[in-house]
Amino acid sequence: MPIISPHGHTDAAWFAENTPFEDATTLIVKPDHYLLRMLHSQGVSLDELGVATTDGRAGESDNRRIWRTFAGHYHLFQGTPSRLWLDYVFAEVFGMTLRLDESTADDYYDAITTTLQSEAFRPRALLDSLNIELIATTDAATDELRHHEALKGTAWERRVIATFRPDDVTDPDHAGFVDNVARLGELTGEDTSGWKGYLAALATRRAYFVSLGATATDHGHPTARTCNLDANACEALFARCLQGSASHDDTECFRGQMLTEMARMSIEDGLVMQIHPGVFRNHDGPAFSRYGSHIGADIPMPISYVEGLKPMLDLFGNEPGLRIILFTLDESTYSRELAPIAGYYPAVTLGPPWWFHDSPEGMLRFRRRTTETAGFYNTAGFNDDTRALLSIPARHDVARRIDCRFLAELVAEGRLDLDEAEQLAPELAYGLARKAYNLDRSSRA
Amino acid sequence: MPIISPHGHTDAAWFAENTPFEDATTLIVKPDHYLLRMLHSQGVSLDELGVATTDGRAGESDNRRIWRTFAGHYHLFQGTPSRLWLDYVFAEVFGMTLRLDESTADDYYDAITTTLQSEAFRPRALLDSLNIELIATTDAATDELRHHEALKGTAWERRVIATFRPDDVTDPDHAGFVDNVARLGELTGEDTSGWKGYLAALATRRAYFVSLGATATDHGHPTARTCNLDANACEALFARCLQGSASHDDTECFRGQMLTEMARMSIEDGLVMQIHPGVFRNHDGPAFSRYGSHIGADIPMPISYVEGLKPMLDLFGNEPGLRIILFTLDESTYSRELAPIAGYYPAVTLGPPWWFHDSPEGMLRFRRRTTETAGFYNTAGFNDDTRALLSIPARHDVARRIDCRFLAELVAEGRLDLDEAEQLAPELAYGLARKAYNLDRSSRA
Amino acid sequence: MPIISPHGHTDAAWFAENTPFEDATTLIVKPDHYLLRMLHSQGVSLDELGVATTDGRAGESDNRRIWRTFAGHYHLFQGTPSRLWLDYVFAEVFGMTLRLDESTADDYYDAITTTLQSEAFRPRALLDSLNIELIATTDAATDELRHHEALKGTAWERRVIATFRPDDVTDPDHAGFVDNVARLGELTGEDTSGWKGYLAALATRRAYFVSLGATATDHGHPTARTCNLDANACEALFARCLQGSASHDDTECFRGQMLTEMARMSIEDGLVMQIHPGVFRNHDGPAFSRYGSHIGADIPMPISYVEGLKPMLDLFGNEPGLRIILFTLDESTYSRELAPIAGYYPAVTLGPPWWFHDSPEGMLRFRRRTTETAGFYNTAGFNDDTRALLSIPARHDVARRIDCRFLAELVAEGRLDLDEAEQLAPELAYGLARKAYNLDRSSRA
Repeated sequence: MPIISPHGHTDAAWFAENTPFEDATTLIVKPDHYLLRMLHSQGVSLDELGVATTDGRAGESDNRRIWRTFAGHYHLFQGTPSRLWLDYVFAEVFGMTLRLDESTADDYYDAITTTLQSEAFRPRALLDSLNIELIATTDAATDELRHHEALKGTAWERRVIATFRPDDVTDPDHAGFVDNVARLGELTGEDTSGWKGYLAALATRRAYFVSLGATATDHGHPTARTCNLDANACEALFARCLQGSASHDDTECFRGQMLTEMARMSIEDGLVMQIHPGVFRNHDGPAFSRYGSHIGADIPMPISYVEGLKPMLDLFGNEPGLRIILFTLDESTYSRELAPIAGYYPAVTLGPPWWFHDSPEGMLRFRRRTTETAGFYNTAGFNDDTRALLSIPARHDVARRIDCRFLAELVAEGRLDLDEAEQLAPELAYGLARKAYNLDRSSRA
Repeated sequence: MPIISPHGHTDAAWFAENTPFEDATTLIVKPDHYLLRMLHSQGVSLDELGVATTDGRAGESDNRRIWRTFAGHYHLFQGTPSRLWLDYVFAEVFGMTLRLDESTADDYYDAITTTLQSEAFRPRALLDSLNIELIATTDAATDELRHHEALKGTAWERRVIATFRPDDVTDPDHAGFVDNVARLGELTGEDTSGWKGYLAALATRRAYFVSLGATATDHGHPTARTCNLDANACEALFARCLQGSASHDDTECFRGQMLTEMARMSIEDGLVMQIHPGVFRNHDGPAFSRYGSHIGADIPMPISYVEGLKPMLDLFGNEPGLRIILFTLDESTYSRELAPIAGYYPAVTLGPPWWFHDSPEGMLRFRRRTTETAGFYNTAGFNDDTRALLSIPARHDVARRIDCRFLAELVAEGRLDLDEAEQLAPELAYGLARKAYNLDRSSRA
Repeated sequence: MPIISPHGHTDAAWFAENTPFEDATTLIVKPDHYLLRMLHSQGVSLDELGVATTDGRAGESDNRRIWRTFAGHYHLFQGTPSRLWLDYVFAEVFGMTLRLDESTADDYYDAITTTLQSEAFRPRALLDSLNIELIATTDAATDELRHHEALKGTAWERRVIATFRPDDVTDPDHAGFVDNVARLGELTGEDTSGWKGYLAALATRRAYFVSLGATATDHGHPTARTCNLDANACEALFARCLQGSASHDDTECFRGQMLTEMARMSIEDGLVMQIHPGVFRNHDGPAFSRYGSHIGADIPMPISYVEGLKPMLDLFGNEPGLRIILFTLDESTYSRELAPIAGYYPAVTLGPPWWFHDSPEGMLRFRRRTTETAGFYNTAGFNDDTRALLSIPARHDVARRIDCRFLAELVAEGRLDLDEAEQLAPELAYGLARKAYNLDRSSRA
């Protein structure tokens, strides 16, 4: 079946500009924080991997050399999903069947780099050959969406769609929050110095994303806290956040209030709401100063959904027009909180195993701990959540195999009829994702 | 082997009055919060399911229509234990072998409803045909136990027994707490306006339950906190709870003190103590206002046993005459807290997987995470915990199969001898429940 | 392959003095808190098991009688790792093949006790016959290491090594903290009444341990909290701890600071740092008063690594010369915190499943929840962590089988090549332990 990729981090520029990818290292190693962190954990410095520092000093600039370093440490990925994904890409996309190691490093680098220059490996051609029917990017609220604009009116506009990720203007702890809010005002012609204008600007911006195909928003808060303050309290809280006088609890509360506001707007404009909470971002302070984000130094934390979501769910948990897709990195919440919540509230759907748990073991844990309480129809199909374009089929392949394994177990144990499993498999692989992300309602202005 | 059902929620009136069950919907759909919540999660309103509102407006009153709605959504239960239980009931109890769906809905409704009118399907006959040797109901401290009284002196009195569930008089956050405490005084002739009279009334009431066959108490507190205050502090705390001047911490502390008091009384009167903590009851505020409890909107929370139980265990953890059966909905506590506690304290036994975890996967998790530390003999056998009378054999059947699967794995891996597994299987299915609930000591006045 | 036992609790006196073990009960039952707690949980008193009370009254003194009590309750261990270990010891070490129970109790007792008197069963001979290449003891900072001294210059000095466990001088809540710190001063000739002298004494003491073969330290704190205070704050905090005026938060903070100081010293002297946090020690207050520690009344608690370790990791997480081996009893942290931390920080390695989780199920959970994120090379091989000398091969045997089972699954699922599994198996059994504990760098003065 075709691949639906409703949540991920590919670059819209690839598809708008359709220029060939540079080389093996640029496409496969450098953007993959799973690879960076594992190599780093075993003593390979980020400099050696070509990660640029925040003060502009580049690391290793010889991409072939970086590839050799990666190949020489390929055994570190034994037993990890990265190994599965990479082997699939090497074999299925590039036809490489010898194992990657120091001795085969150059062959791999040359073969991949050369192949990437061919017409068949340009980004748009890859969407076809990889059988990707639809792919969503993730875009800041203040992103001008130039590349999505460029796709407008072409055959690609319904295939490469935006996602509204407003954390840079809803999280006062984000660097640049105040500037971002001001920029939001400029982009929308609203006065974002006050609460009402700020909300209006967000609604306007969401409408713009909808006009470029977006069917969903995404929220990466540290916790799942939501709030329900009255308008005066919101006004005052927003003012403190803009003035820089907000306390730690203020900023947490503001983020919580903004989840509630985003849900309210979703009821209006139909955007599906994704919540990806519970990560301590940039846990390694010195490395964050030196290299910035996206080096793999994000560590999950315990999280409470049952208390955190209650204010929002009391308001909107039963709204027929709302869909909130919940993700977690705290697997103890699967059976304790998430499945019971999704198995009760009409507005809530469970997202697939996320990030560290996007693995065969993680997927089995997810099905085994949520199906008993939430069933299959309260789940949202698979997300690849990646910027590693070539690995998208590999990731969906793993998910489809594990879901079919789970279904097969149910059939073998007499808990599900075979015809039901045959009907569920394509739903889990394709149908539920289209439904969960409102893709059949998708329309662009 | 016969079924022992030492903890559940069937209605003693069924067995006392022995009138036929009304129809398929009344018996199977309406009282089952597992079904209500799943249908609700996929957009079926509780009104359509005939759930009455708290202001007395009934929902859908055509039970055949409700059954059709249920049947039309039967696929939602794929992979859930409800599906297992229902299929078992349909096939084993009613001989229906076509799958339930829209097309077979009326056939099912008619066949079941008709069958329920036969003599063989009256409640008492069902206890025989379902092979239920003993069943315990769960009853409020202020319940007059009319139906248990009616069974007294009959052949059923040792087969249908009461359980003392005093939450309505021990939890100051219960609606009606003050009235309930006053009613407790009336029922016992004690002055429950003071701490000593209140304790005396509870002891008297427990004795009355014992006279009607009760061998256990049950406590559904939000947390596992226990306290050990001196008598003066208890007196003052109780006064604040009655006066309505108790703080949040006061009511939590009062509940904790009452667990300790109940344990103290259990040492006296031999009642086994069950603790079912860790649920956020009625999480959906608006739905609770509209429909009340029991609609499936209860969500588990993280819980700490190691800190919470310490005051009580310091007092009574080594009491030979006391048995405390602990349940959890936070499965992360199985290996971290519960198995180590039960594997050390003589007074503590582990209850079976509860509620959301009463599933094949949940049962396997329980055995795999507790046996290594607590063994088998610190566990209490199976509870069906249900008001769905017909499904009781199905639920025990699942538990027995999963326990035997676990034993078979141990034998296959050379970790247990076959004769040991053959001796353990009936213990897990029957013997441990009789022992854990003191059923062989059971006697009525 | 030979056994590396880099963390455990055997007694160095055994190997220094090489006198025969007394009898079956003294060697097998009395020192094993796994056995004591399970027997106690089912109503066998600690007195009956010969546990001495803190006021010097001995319990049952007839060791044969204690053995019979143990044998008569041997079924309690069905399904537990203790059963696996004991059956292995009985069959492989003593050639007993009938199952232990009341009827075989005396045969066992006599056969084992007699065998223990033979030359082949003296401690040093056992190290050979059990194929133990290296064993580390665990020793208090103020331990004089007489027995390790006695081994110096013999063929055993590199085979039986010390481990520096300074909790008695770094945890102000330890009984005797003040005296221990004074004693530390005496042993090192430093003035331990001030912060600087105290640190110098610790460094001196560590050097002494290194001179007796130690390659590691070990830290058993209640939490994983670390701190990074300036020298003045440390000085003042240390003073409050010595004066007995420290608050609860002070002592917690002092322990946290000492983890950081120990890491700093490890960078200097190369000692690998083990952290074993998260246990509520001596949970049963009355039993602790009566019998002291080591009766099996320790219960794990929830723990946070992501917040707790950050101060130390910000300082030293990227130090090439540092290795911190993390253990847990809160398995919810495997996938949520520990694997992501070890899969990023070069200084962090994951210790094997610990204590309650040193079981087939626990080991599978560990591999299944950590490998996907941390791989194999961020793990430290197996620890037996025991004082039950005879069971060491049994414990390693279980670990090796489970690791091979996990590898076999990966191969069978096409996720790992067979030659890779064949190369990984000896690493998991032997090589990673040597590497993690710097055993190839080990040298004695």
